[in-house]
Amino acid sequence: MSERFERGSARMAELDPALQPLVEQGMAGVSPDFARMVVEFGYGDVYTRPGLELQQRQLIAVTALTTLGHSPRQLRGHIGAALNVGLTPQQIVETIIQAALYAGFPAAMNALTLAREVFAERGVSPLPSSGDR
Amino acid sequence: MSERFERGSARMAELDPALQPLVEQGMAGVSPDFARMVVEFGYGDVYTRPGLELQQRQLIAVTALTTLGHSPRQLRGHIGAALNVGLTPQQIVETIIQAALYAGFPAAMNALTLAREVFAERGVSPLPSSGDR
Amino acid sequence: MSERFERGSARMAELDPALQPLVEQGMAGVSPDFARMVVEFGYGDVYTRPGLELQQRQLIAVTALTTLGHSPRQLRGHIGAALNVGLTPQQIVETIIQAALYAGFPAAMNALTLAREVFAERGVSPLPSSGDR
Amino acid sequence: MSERFERGSARMAELDPALQPLVEQGMAGVSPDFARMVVEFGYGDVYTRPGLELQQRQLIAVTALTTLGHSPRQLRGHIGAALNVGLTPQQIVETIIQAALYAGFPAAMNALTLAREVFAERGVSPLPSSGDR
Amino acid sequence: MSERFERGSARMAELDPALQPLVEQGMAGVSPDFARMVVEFGYGDVYTRPGLELQQRQLIAVTALTTLGHSPRQLRGHIGAALNVGLTPQQIVETIIQAALYAGFPAAMNALTLAREVFAERGVSPLPSSGDR
Amino acid sequence: MSERFERGSARMAELDPALQPLVEQGMAGVSPDFARMVVEFGYGDVYTRPGLELQQRQLIAVTALTTLGHSPRQLRGHIGAALNVGLTPQQIVETIIQAALYAGFPAAMNALTLAREVFAERGVSPLPSSGDR
Repeated sequence: MSERFERGSARMAELDPALQPLVEQGMAGVSPDFARMVVEFGYGDVYTRPGLELQQRQLIAVTALTTLGHSPRQLRGHIGAALNVGLTPQQIVETIIQAALYAGFPAAMNALTLAREVFAERGVSPLPSSGDR
Repeated sequence: MSERFERGSARMAELDPALQPLVEQGMAGVSPDFARMVVEFGYGDVYTRPGLELQQRQLIAVTALTTLGHSPRQLRGHIGAALNVGLTPQQIVETIIQAALYAGFPAAMNALTLAREVFAERGVSPLPSSGDR
Repeated sequence: MSERFERGSARMAELDPALQPLVEQGMAGVSPDFARMVVEFGYGDVYTRPGLELQQRQLIAVTALTTLGHSPRQLRGHIGAALNVGLTPQQIVETIIQAALYAGFPAAMNALTLAREVFAERGVSPLPSSGDR
Repeated sequence: MSERFERGSARMAELDPALQPLVEQGMAGVSPDFARMVVEFGYGDVYTRPGLELQQRQLIAVTALTTLGHSPRQLRGHIGAALNVGLTPQQIVETIIQAALYAGFPAAMNALTLAREVFAERGVSPLPSSGDR
Repeated sequence: MSERFERGSARMAELDPALQPLVEQGMAGVSPDFARMVVEFGYGDVYTRPGLELQQRQLIAVTALTTLGHSPRQLRGHIGAALNVGLTPQQIVETIIQAALYAGFPAAMNALTLAREVFAERGVSPLPSSGDR
Repeated sequence: MSERFERGSARMAELDPALQPLVEQGMAGVSPDFARMVVEFGYGDVYTRPGLELQQRQLIAVTALTTLGHSPRQLRGHIGAALNVGLTPQQIVETIIQAALYAGFPAAMNALTLAREVFAERGVSPLPSSGDR
């Protein structure tokens, strides 16, 4: 196991212990190599670079996936990871609302619908802080 | 309730009485503020501007959502609203067919598949007029 | 020359006499076949179908190209054609503003910037009608 | 039945005997004309042009649909057709992995997930050849 | 001048004093209303919401515009604003590198090329901190 | 210099001797790390995988970049590389024409316009073979 793989694997575990098994099981039988690239390059090379906090990296992941609009499974996963690294539900909601300016309202509404599902599973809510406005 | 909200709410009701409850229930628990923005800005500020008829606005909504390709739920809703404001099933089909030129055949075929579902629910058909060609 | 080609060629001339020469010169030396497909299929098969007025078709073209965001040359051309078939500058502006809801503000602002250039070349303005709001 | 239609129909049958019925049934009741355009233009005009082998055309279809990210049904169909014209599961996997460079990892991972499903239905696997790396 | 406009105007000035004049001059003659919407809704309603710091909002803007890929002018502007609110050149570069995972390498490389131009104009560099890796 | 870097560097040279210097100069002063990632991961890890010929890989690159529509510089580069690895101008044109089915006509026409420029610089032409149809 390469040093890049170990570094990526550790970073994935920080984000969500379920993340690496999910990627590896998803790619089993079709491309274990791609799963390895995700670990080594995506998390080992990129996600461990200095200069950004993990909370910032999760803002970036949620924004990019909201903007793309075509990957609900990954967006769900990164919303969950955003909670795990300490972003509040409110911050996640605000991120998606701002993304609406660039990516349009439908992309944002779909992302908020996914966020609602993740928040419900976790038993958390963004509302006390955003509702008082 | 702001004047912008009331204006948006009235416009949404013209398009489809189910529209505002759907948006508000969808955002309940995650971002009632975003639902309010949709009503106030999307429908109160933009959809009530002078210069375009509602039928023209629904051509625009159907075209943009066909082109984006990632929001089937919203496209379904706007196809239904297009019928409500008097566009014929044939006009909706022709709009999607033209969008194929810009957005590609897969995006158009997916949009036509959604249109078929909406038409079936409504008991309407685009075929008598387009089939004679 | 096929009947589809003649029909497409006539439709292109209605939209803008410069359109077909532009497409053909652009594809000369690389793919005259593709220019022919644009004339035969795009304009001969699709743009001449019954059910939509040319003004409606230009709303669709402007909306789809605003949403895609990556084809300023074609968007400029279709804004010009929209004026030629009788859409007012105001209607074109309103179309792009509504597209902002689905495609985001940057795509709409870029489209409005192109519209401003086309309007200036034509010596027309959307402002008397939209400015009084 | 036009010569273009017959040519397209024959080409579709080479790719997958289920393809044309699927398109026609999907468009029945909403736009048989669009199904005909897909056969005549998509397959009769474009897919039968000289200069590329069918295996190359399926690389192109799989790449474009992976990049778009919004049409899983069509991507599944073209992965199946890619197998039918003799591309190996490994070549399909490698195509999608390369597309990740341009379209991002989420689009590629979704495409590989669809490929896994198609390969399982066919009882084929990309792994003996790609796993030894 | 509405309270929403004043709030948006103040927020734009915090990001970059050149921003509001740029938007207003760009929309002069075509849609002053759209410029007003950008100020009132984009900056007055969205950008002033509680829950995120301005540095976080600029991470979001840079990520979304990198992912869209079609709006270099706006991306340049938001990279400049990111510097103005205290993000370091290195943090901006790291944001774009992470966006490559979701949006692909070409979108990221184009964004980094724009960042280089903005950094050169400002006489700043991301390299002392990122180069030591 | 890592083995991955050397492998990527060699692969880039096979595609086009100007490619690596172009990437490195483009990223100089902003992110030499990203240039290294492009060499190591893009070309060293992905482009050197077994299972596809370089001609196939260039079909994939041209298709993906045509579909994205937002990266003309990279598309130009990969059209040039496609010629370098032995794809004919006709094959490149046919690839782009097929991509029109998925990505729409404007994206394809823009790609053909770039191809025309590259062909002119190289003194090659796709026309003898495709024009006889």
